[in-house]
Amino acid sequence: MDQPLSRLISELSRLPGIGPRTATRLSYHLLKVSTEQARRLAEAIVDVKEKLGHCSRCNSITAVDPCSWCTDPTRDPTRLCVVEEPFNIQPIERTGEFHGRYHVLLGALSPQRGIGPGELKVEGLFDRLEGVEEVILATNPNVEGEATALYLSRRLKPLVPRVTRLAFGMPVGGDIEFTDEVTLGRSLAGRRDL
Amino acid sequence: MDQPLSRLISELSRLPGIGPRTATRLSYHLLKVSTEQARRLAEAIVDVKEKLGHCSRCNSITAVDPCSWCTDPTRDPTRLCVVEEPFNIQPIERTGEFHGRYHVLLGALSPQRGIGPGELKVEGLFDRLEGVEEVILATNPNVEGEATALYLSRRLKPLVPRVTRLAFGMPVGGDIEFTDEVTLGRSLAGRRDL
Repeated sequence: MDQPLSRLISELSRLPGIGPRTATRLSYHLLKVSTEQARRLAEAIVDVKEKLGHCSRCNSITAVDPCSWCTDPTRDPTRLCVVEEPFNIQPIERTGEFHGRYHVLLGALSPQRGIGPGELKVEGLFDRLEGVEEVILATNPNVEGEATALYLSRRLKPLVPRVTRLAFGMPVGGDIEFTDEVTLGRSLAGRRDL
Repeated sequence: MDQPLSRLISELSRLPGIGPRTATRLSYHLLKVSTEQARRLAEAIVDVKEKLGHCSRCNSITAVDPCSWCTDPTRDPTRLCVVEEPFNIQPIERTGEFHGRYHVLLGALSPQRGIGPGELKVEGLFDRLEGVEEVILATNPNVEGEATALYLSRRLKPLVPRVTRLAFGMPVGGDIEFTDEVTLGRSLAGRRDL
């Protein structure tokens, strides 16, 4: 195999979820596409590194600092939604249920991986609480996300009128038969009157 | 979402097997890696397009023409292995069972997709038969690969002493219970004396 090809395969293999087989398949595909398309992909990769950075207020990904989430005057400054990663913002936006501002932690607490509050963008959150009436903890529904939500809720409760957590339960369109017992348990515990 | 990011997601989504979700995940990953690593990937993509092409003899991917498979004097010129795609060569090499030369068709016959012999690198194969004692048809074990092997064997048999096809059967380490009936049927039909 020729060197440029094996180098591309090895670089692609470093991406998450891309094993040597997928990297090989993608590399041969890139050999087949137009030079134009390959160049556009290469440029797009360099561009995100050169043109984007983290917002100094909320840590989301942005080309201008502060970002549009932070400066948009139509967004409600009294609600603050805390997420682990910048890519958690879009799914929340798509629900159309939240119109406040965001704070990105850039991770979650994980004693196992040695990630404590000092490794996360936690302190900046406490600088942003003036006038905030509700902090929604939208960390992931797993051990690390739960630990992070618990830690933050303890620190936030004395400072903010309302600290909330995303609801757990059955996924819409799901099936009781195929729902794991932990989720089903949470769904029962969180049951609502009709 | 900022424009360089959505452009990278859209370019990545054009790759085979990469949906919008994976493209998003990869894009955010690339935002996190070192600029150095992102640049190496971008360069590797451009490099394969700029430095590699098809061998004018066997159609494999190569930086020099003719390729090393075609010019390596230690390889047996009397055996010719016909494959569909350049990336079929490496798996065959890894078996250590073949030491001859290759011919890449750059596809397989497919009436459904309108691919006839004229769309494949078939004629070049017939220019390479002098001194060849065996042509091994290593096209894929599916409808298109089988049709291609059948077509080629009909044309090759008058011209070459031996035309062979890869054996079909149970995968090594497989289980009769979980082998589909077509494979199992082929495995029975191809049974060997012990």
